[in-house]
Amino acid sequence: MNLESLGEFGLIHRVKTLFQQGVPKGCVGIGDDCAVVPLDAGRRLLLTTDMLVEDIHFLRSGITARQLGAKSLAVNLSDIAAMGGVPHSAFLALGLPREIDGDWVEAYFSGLHALAESTKTALLGGDTTRSPGPVIINLTVAGTVPAERIRYRSAARPGDKVLVTGTLGDSSAGLLVLQSGGAASSADERLLARHLEPRAHLEEGQWLSSRPGVHAMLDVSDGIDSDVRHILEASSCGAEISLHGLPLSKDLRESAARHGWDPLELAACGGEDYCLLLTAAEDYAATLQAEFAARFGRPLYPMGTVTAAPGVLRYVNGEQEHTFRRKGYDHFAAHEPQG
Amino acid sequence: MNLESLGEFGLIHRVKTLFQQGVPKGCVGIGDDCAVVPLDAGRRLLLTTDMLVEDIHFLRSGITARQLGAKSLAVNLSDIAAMGGVPHSAFLALGLPREIDGDWVEAYFSGLHALAESTKTALLGGDTTRSPGPVIINLTVAGTVPAERIRYRSAARPGDKVLVTGTLGDSSAGLLVLQSGGAASSADERLLARHLEPRAHLEEGQWLSSRPGVHAMLDVSDGIDSDVRHILEASSCGAEISLHGLPLSKDLRESAARHGWDPLELAACGGEDYCLLLTAAEDYAATLQAEFAARFGRPLYPMGTVTAAPGVLRYVNGEQEHTFRRKGYDHFAAHEPQG
Repeated sequence: MNLESLGEFGLIHRVKTLFQQGVPKGCVGIGDDCAVVPLDAGRRLLLTTDMLVEDIHFLRSGITARQLGAKSLAVNLSDIAAMGGVPHSAFLALGLPREIDGDWVEAYFSGLHALAESTKTALLGGDTTRSPGPVIINLTVAGTVPAERIRYRSAARPGDKVLVTGTLGDSSAGLLVLQSGGAASSADERLLARHLEPRAHLEEGQWLSSRPGVHAMLDVSDGIDSDVRHILEASSCGAEISLHGLPLSKDLRESAARHGWDPLELAACGGEDYCLLLTAAEDYAATLQAEFAARFGRPLYPMGTVTAAPGVLRYVNGEQEHTFRRKGYDHFAAHEPQG
Repeated sequence: MNLESLGEFGLIHRVKTLFQQGVPKGCVGIGDDCAVVPLDAGRRLLLTTDMLVEDIHFLRSGITARQLGAKSLAVNLSDIAAMGGVPHSAFLALGLPREIDGDWVEAYFSGLHALAESTKTALLGGDTTRSPGPVIINLTVAGTVPAERIRYRSAARPGDKVLVTGTLGDSSAGLLVLQSGGAASSADERLLARHLEPRAHLEEGQWLSSRPGVHAMLDVSDGIDSDVRHILEASSCGAEISLHGLPLSKDLRESAARHGWDPLELAACGGEDYCLLLTAAEDYAATLQAEFAARFGRPLYPMGTVTAAPGVLRYVNGEQEHTFRRKGYDHFAAHEPQG
């Protein structure tokens, strides 16, 4: 076994098999955005954990400590959002190199605190330790959700419409802006902010999970090329995604044209959008879109359809099939550190 | 602010102040072994998180992957034990360097799995990611406990007896064995095992927390010189610890004599014993010791007495006061990596 070729999903699969037999009745373990633990007849506890390591997930020169504080919480809140949950508390483990500046640590905590406060997430636990090199951040977030509102990855059905709650590719375009040395326009600046200051779609997740016609849901962290496949694998379905349906922001179109990037590839294969990807019953999708727009003042974007072909993800451009060179994000594959 | 001089406890204090206002009613946040979250009228959820970083907390050459898998869970189970809880589930975040051997990862998981199974702890969540250098392990463990059984650090009262559930200093002696190049005797070997394969005192914690005369409790992770102070600070008390009361194993005495170590200093200032430190009502301590011995076939060791002098920890040797050169463990201070 070689980790680089096996990749994260191979490792998760092996570990999942090893630990599956130990999952207590009523609990859901590895394989969805959060673990699910019964609290009482009606409520479930959601738990999710995420590790951010310097030089892998961020460069200290590329993101302010305050932004990093908020982002490290936001990526976990996004997992809670994907299950329709309300965040409750956060538990931080922080590994710091000996030479770290105290002001950096203060700013990190102020960013974390501001987002925790605005989302009513209490920081209830912490472990600080020394690191031999990289800053290491591990946050575990707990949330709650009424049992019937949880939305699993495995609930997609052939015929469902595939939708997303935000535009795609902005965050990975922001990463390219960062890697190219900085913003050359105000569109670049806004893309950079999308990368450095992601917003978890908590209200959207809670609202969507109250709609029975919403079937599968997850958050877009690895890029939809990976994330749609996660739904397909869990639901034993396929999907057809229309290139014209990939929602692109005006900023992404403008900066992509300026820098010569392929905006569709960024939208499909770029990660860290942290909007929600969902499938909804075919006969309900139009109503859902209208209700969502009325509730949030923004569109719920339709991108394609769930098919009956297990594991087959097709991108179509009118009649033509399209293939992307890049694949979605794998945490073990070689790649550039992110913002 | 400089982290090295501020140290871990200074940082925790600043963060605690920042986040204290956000703690929901009925919850207990940063400052005890676990965070406490109400589940229903009678039950509480316990949550604890702990980060182990290669070259800080362990050397990959000094501990087998299987031992490390078990130890990374055991240190969290020990926090659950200190609150009188029953473990429920674990959530792992694992950062791995690209060159790591797949067999190492398999062995790590097999060690984790074996202890998880024997303690009925379900691995319900995981995040794997790449690390630029060190192996990084973060485990979060959830447990439950009846509300009235929780034992806090803040419950010590002047006059209480101070007791421990195991001998002290064995783990740090094992670390010295490791650092000196390996075991030179079977006593050395057993001390090494105490360092590499700690046991969380879960049954002891559950049993002790069912006794109303048991007041404060925590697990010995930083060494009792630090850990007694944690109780004193939280309880606004002092303590007098008798050097003759520090429980030393036969192995520690033997290896200390052979290698020229100070066994009392190892017992007081060495960390990672992972037994439980508690205070008990003065008029109940003798009964508790007898009941403990009958239940577990091992002694509950009395070490001293809680006093009314806030924050004052005195070691006494008969009539004489004793001072140790070393202080307890600080995660930011310079020190040798551990097993």
